Amino acid sequence: MKRKSLDGAVCSIARSLDQVGEWWSLLIVRDVFRGKRRFGELLDSLGLARNILSARLKRLVECGVLEMQPAGDGGPYKEYALTAKGRDLIVTLIALEQWGNRWTACDLAKPLVRIERATGEEIAPIEIRSRDGRPLTASDLGLAARTDGAG
Amino acid sequence: MKRKSLDGAVCSIARSLDQVGEWWSLLIVRDVFRGKRRFGELLDSLGLARNILSARLKRLVECGVLEMQPAGDGGPYKEYALTAKGRDLIVTLIALEQWGNRWTACDLAKPLVRIERATGEEIAPIEIRSRDGRPLTASDLGLAARTDGAG
Repeated sequence: MKRKSLDGAVCSIARSLDQVGEWWSLLIVRDVFRGKRRFGELLDSLGLARNILSARLKRLVECGVLEMQPAGDGGPYKEYALTAKGRDLIVTLIALEQWGNRWTACDLAKPLVRIERATGEEIAPIEIRSRDGRPLTASDLGLAARTDGAG
Repeated sequence: MKRKSLDGAVCSIARSLDQVGEWWSLLIVRDVFRGKRRFGELLDSLGLARNILSARLKRLVECGVLEMQPAGDGGPYKEYALTAKGRDLIVTLIALEQWGNRWTACDLAKPLVRIERATGEEIAPIEIRSRDGRPLTASDLGLAARTDGAG
């Protein structure tokens, strides 16, 4: 499927999707978070075509979301690892997961939920908040050019 | 591009992407958030092919992310509106936007940032938190089946 690149777009949502919005890209990032690091492991886990997985991995490495490393066991295979940029996608992945649990999981008696390992407790729903911690809704929000004092 | 449906997948990230993970779908949702409600407005804004926009809109309506309404001005055209399920995608969109601002906007002197209308102040970075409000990182997180007491 051809599409125009949104790489130069002013909107950060469009720029983000230009890097990770292809079908499979976020599922690959999810799997690397889960500890799958080798091409063959990702191929087995995702069940997609070899050439598509290659193309998606190449793009994720080019964008600096993944990097290639020597195998941890000293073997001949390279492994994929998340960069800091890639690890920062966890917020987007958990936001998608919680949305899916709320809106697409009604037929599952016990959906999988994200817990804090140390306590075993389900994490809080991700919220949009003001700098002083008040929860905000979509209608509270606007867009502005960042000024020097902010951020 | 053919792909297998992940609709029945246990993972909520996969189920979410099955509904909104096609290229363009989240950009359409973003535009409806911005007040673009008619087919022609979305076509002009996104610059994609008419048949692709039709297919994506059809899927978003089938999934209950968008609904069709009579035009607000009483005219003959239908408008698209976000359902509660669609409005709940704002968290995912803002997470993607903030990730894009952090990692893909380095060439922009003043990227657009999300503000609270009432105060004009930039919103806080979205964080993953425990139920009692502590910030959590990816390595703090695990998965578990939801138990009756949780959630």
